[in-house]
Formats: sequence, C-alpha cells, structure tokens
Amino acid sequence: MSLGVVAIVGVTGAVGREALKILESRGHPASRIVALASARSAGTTVPYAGGSLAVREISAEAFAGVSAAIFCADADTARKWTPVAVEAGSLVVDNSSAFRMSPDVPLVIPEVNGELVRGVPSAGVSAKTANGSARRAKVIANPNCTTIILLTALNPLRRSFGVERIVVSTYQAVSGAGAAAIDELNEQARAVLAGGEARPSVFKEPCAFNVFSHDSAMDAESGLNGEELKVIAETRKIWGDESVAVSPTCVRVPVVRAHTESITVTFSRPASETEVRAALESGAGLRIIDDRSANSFPTPLKASGGDDILVGRIRRDPSVPADADGRSRGWCLLVSGDQLRKGAALNAVQIAELAAAG
Amino acid sequence: MSLGVVAIVGVTGAVGREALKILESRGHPASRIVALASARSAGTTVPYAGGSLAVREISAEAFAGVSAAIFCADADTARKWTPVAVEAGSLVVDNSSAFRMSPDVPLVIPEVNGELVRGVPSAGVSAKTANGSARRAKVIANPNCTTIILLTALNPLRRSFGVERIVVSTYQAVSGAGAAAIDELNEQARAVLAGGEARPSVFKEPCAFNVFSHDSAMDAESGLNGEELKVIAETRKIWGDESVAVSPTCVRVPVVRAHTESITVTFSRPASETEVRAALESGAGLRIIDDRSANSFPTPLKASGGDDILVGRIRRDPSVPADADGRSRGWCLLVSGDQLRKGAALNAVQIAELAAAG
Repeated sequence: MSLGVVAIVGVTGAVGREALKILESRGHPASRIVALASARSAGTTVPYAGGSLAVREISAEAFAGVSAAIFCADADTARKWTPVAVEAGSLVVDNSSAFRMSPDVPLVIPEVNGELVRGVPSAGVSAKTANGSARRAKVIANPNCTTIILLTALNPLRRSFGVERIVVSTYQAVSGAGAAAIDELNEQARAVLAGGEARPSVFKEPCAFNVFSHDSAMDAESGLNGEELKVIAETRKIWGDESVAVSPTCVRVPVVRAHTESITVTFSRPASETEVRAALESGAGLRIIDDRSANSFPTPLKASGGDDILVGRIRRDPSVPADADGRSRGWCLLVSGDQLRKGAALNAVQIAELAAAG
Repeated sequence: MSLGVVAIVGVTGAVGREALKILESRGHPASRIVALASARSAGTTVPYAGGSLAVREISAEAFAGVSAAIFCADADTARKWTPVAVEAGSLVVDNSSAFRMSPDVPLVIPEVNGELVRGVPSAGVSAKTANGSARRAKVIANPNCTTIILLTALNPLRRSFGVERIVVSTYQAVSGAGAAAIDELNEQARAVLAGGEARPSVFKEPCAFNVFSHDSAMDAESGLNGEELKVIAETRKIWGDESVAVSPTCVRVPVVRAHTESITVTFSRPASETEVRAALESGAGLRIIDDRSANSFPTPLKASGGDDILVGRIRRDPSVPADADGRSRGWCLLVSGDQLRKGAALNAVQIAELAAAG
C-alpha cells in the first residue's frame, strides 16, 4: 500500500525526525517525501535512508501533489497551514492540539477507533478558499501522547469488560517538552553531579533528580493542568463516551524519553485474572512484560525507541472486593510507551496508512 | 523535656545519621548519646554538635542506663538486639519491619495515633530473661516511610471526613534502598551523560534516567510487591480499621531523597474544597504548597532535609460526582516528604519524646 507523496511539516523537530525514521523503516521512497519546516530551518537537510532530504519552508506551493501532510509542529503552525494543505488536496494528520476537540475532526488511535478514518472525507475543518467560500476538508487529529498510551493499553480491556472509571498517575519524560528540555535535563544532571546547582529555564522546577507536577498551565477553577484536561476530554471523545470517569495526575520525571503510567481501572463487568491477561495479550500494539519472580516490568528505557506499548504489573486492585470466583471490576496496570513514536509520530503515520488503505 | 540517655543503633547508616542531626537540632547533649553500630564500624567516630561521638559495637552492656534505644538498622539486627535492650530497661523504637505487624507492638505516627505511646508499658514484645521467663517489654515500631508520609498527609482529612479508600502511586527516592543506591544513581548518571551505559547492581533495572516498579520482592499470588503490602497492612493497623481499602503502586524514580505520592482518596462523607483545605491547613506536620497560578506544588527537592510533609495539588477528583453544593467524597493530593526524616528518623525521635513526656 502506497502513501503517495507525504509532507512532514516540522521535519526538524523531535516528532518530525521520528516520523522520518518510521517512513524509512517502512521503505517509503525519499522521492515521495516533502520535508517542510519554518524559515529558520529551510535550506538545511535532514538525513533519510542513507541520503538526505532538502528542507523547504512551509508554503502553499509545497503541498502541491501531497497526499498526506503529517503536521509535527505547534498548534499555531497547524492552524495557519492546515487549511492551506487541505485546499491543496492533502489529507492532514495533525499532531498538535489545534483541532483535537473540533467536533467535526476525528481524533484517532488506529487500534481504538480507526474506523473513523475510512469515513474521513465527510469530516474535517472548514477551509476558506480563495473566493471566500467554505468547503469540507480532510483533517484528522492525533491525540495527546499520554492519552494514546493510556487508551491503547486499555482498549482490549474496554472491548471485553467495559470501562467506567480510570485513575491514572503519570511518570512523563521531559522530551514531551521538546529538545531544549532534554538539554536542560542533561545540563542540570551534569551540574548537580559536579556539586553545582540545577538552573531551571524550560521548566519552572529543577528537572534533574526531581519530579514535579506537569508544567502545562493550570485551570484555576478545577485545579487540573492542561495535560490532565486533555486526557479527560480526549478519552471521552475517542471512546464516544461522555460518562467515562477519568482522574489523571500528570507528573514529570527525569527520564529522557517514554512515558510511564500507573493505571487503576474500574470495569463495567467483573473479570478474572485469566480473562484480563488474555484480553491484553490479544491487544493490538501491546507487549506484555510481567514477570513477578524476576521483578521485571515495563520501564521507560525498555519502551524507548520501540513501537509497542509495554504492559505489566497486571493485578487485581486490592481495594476492590472480588466475587466468589475471584472476578473483580477493579484492576491495576503499569504501562510504558514511547511518546515520540506511538504517542505521536507512529500513530500519525498509522492514521495516514489507514486513510490510504481506505 | 529530657529524653535521658539515647542509644542510636546503626548510627553510621543513613537513618542513624539523620537521627543524630535531629537530636543535635533539639540540643540533646552529646554526653547522653550512645552511638552503636556493627563491629565493622566500631572504633570510628561520627560528627555531633561540633564534636564527635565514638562508635561502639552493639552489646548488652551498651544499653545500660539507656532510656530510649532508637534502632536504625535492619530487621535481623532489630530481632537480635531488641530483647537485649528491653532487658536492660530501654524503650526500643524500631525503624525496621521486624515488629511492625506484631499484635502487641504499637505501630505509631505521633500525629495519628500517638496516644498509643502513653500506654506503651502494657505493650511490647516478649523478651526472654536470663532465667528463661518472659516478661512484657517496651517496643514501639516505626512504620514504613511510604506509610508515614501517606497517613500524616491524610490524618486531618480522615479525622474530619473519614476515609474509605486510598489509591496511591508513589515516586520513591533511591535512598530508601541505602547509601549504595545513591552511589549507583550518581555513577549511572555520570556514565550515561558520558555516552556510556548504566550498569545496575543494587537494583535490577537501571535507575538513572529511568523509573521502575519498586524493587521489593513480589508476592506471586497478589502481584503486589513488599512495599505495597506494607502500605496496606500498616495503614489498617495504624488506623485500627481493617475495612479501609488501599490500592498502592510503588515505583522508584531517579531522585536522591524524599518520596512523592499521588493520592486519590474517597472520604466517608462529602466535603467542600474550603473544608478540605481548612482541614489540611490545621494538620500537624504538614505544609501546604499549592499555588495554581505559579504552578508551584510539592517536589522531592523542596521536601528534602525538612521536617514537614508537603501537600499540594489539592483538588476535587474529577471522576467522582459532586453534590449540588460542590461537596464531594473524592479528592486528590500530591504529597512529598523526606523519607529519612519524617519517614524514619524524625518519626522515631518524636515517638521517644512522646514516651518520655508520657
């Protein structure tokens, strides 16, 4: 199945570079990639399949002949250029938060609600054409990385047993805040190891040898930060279930890459451990690491660079009574996933592939 | 109030050194400290109040005249020497897990159940005397650090509203695993920053730039590790409530010192945010850090070296419906506490002080 010509918007960023790696691993030809970035990066090159790609500045002309434009940039860039790409006839898969909650833009994790992609010509945002008329456009939003990892792990459990409530505490890598955050972690770690002090710049709190509540802006009324609000709203939209109860606590940890999530979930129907394990083992995009005797479970280092969401610490929630058969509605998991791959670039490429196949 | 002569058993370890710091800050005279350690450390000195204390090997004679023996050693040392110290007439406050679940040994957090200390002469473990008869001994157990931090934070909430269920995910410092673990974190961080690899030794997983499920041995049946089992059992014992439902997930993070806990709690009775905050502000041993506009909340760095348990991210659990007045039974907190101080040495000194006052 061919993706046709693919544009990567924001090709020099962390997610953009990851998208290139994924296309390369799939054998996508360099001649069918349009590498786009801001004016600052235009004129440079990015490595690809043993050669390199010239980076061009984002423009209307750049989208000519592009089948799928994968936006790996910020929300402002997405809002500015998505209508232009759509006008040029491209499918846009956007990694930013710009359109995630737009009612007419599907928010997609292929394993969870991939069926929405096949119906995509009927969905989209309004794009103003040159003469001022509006038409339906093709835009699909990629969820927030924390949501993707959470819902990919819970997907087979929801299908088998239903999910009523999720309590999740996250252990999020600094790279979700960009390349400068990785530099900051490394510099602070060096300084502290040399007997000096961490000097925060990207984050308000020191990130080396520390953990802190997620750095996204906080809603003063609810006391939830932006990351937590995304997890709640996106879960409801992706599942098409406004009643699902979600209680997230998002925390940064001094990890370069891959997010970990401690999940306590309440099913609609009780399940046995055998049933829960069987469901997870059949789950798309998951790999079980759950060796109690060796104390071996998912970690961000094990998840880094991989495509699978790692699932372990599968156990009955000891705070929820089981029935006489040992079946319970309460279960716990520890999950790690690479937020730049399945949490961003891989999920976006999978969406483009689904659309091309559909 | 005088503590009399205090023996610190395991004075050269991390908790023992912290106990000395606390006695020093309280002006306890050096002449009333008996510094004890294993044969390996005997003959060395430890700094105290500008001078130093000679470290002696643990022996029956060493406990002569000792009012309170604070054991900052492992469970085997506690099991071996506690009966000897009791026989010599000392009150033993034991930091290890040796006696925590013994039915006749009080498990005490002074702010929570300090009243048990005053009744301590009637409690204790059996100590064999020289002629083989058994008598009641004076032993008080110090809870696990994770339990102390959790229950000190929840104490005012439980008193005001009752607690039915706790879901807690931890972010635990490596120093809970001893001084070698701190060295391992630093060495691994240096190696990784230099482009090398982390070589695990104390832990099975790399600890630098990684997080992993707690390293305590796992119960194959329940899938809970030793740390999690302690939190459940100790919470029930300290609260005297076998019905309280506790679901812990214990995780190590690359932090040198101080544990952080993401707590989701279900009260027995609904409370408003004003009521929850008022309760926490009046809570003994707590300090609120909860500035939503500045995104400033508890972190392990802020908690390190301090006596207070830091409490923040105080918010209604968005997964639990509130009543028409905004009152809810579901609340969330993020808490950080120094596990060597309130989580160990400070709590033990406080117990000795309570006993001396009683």
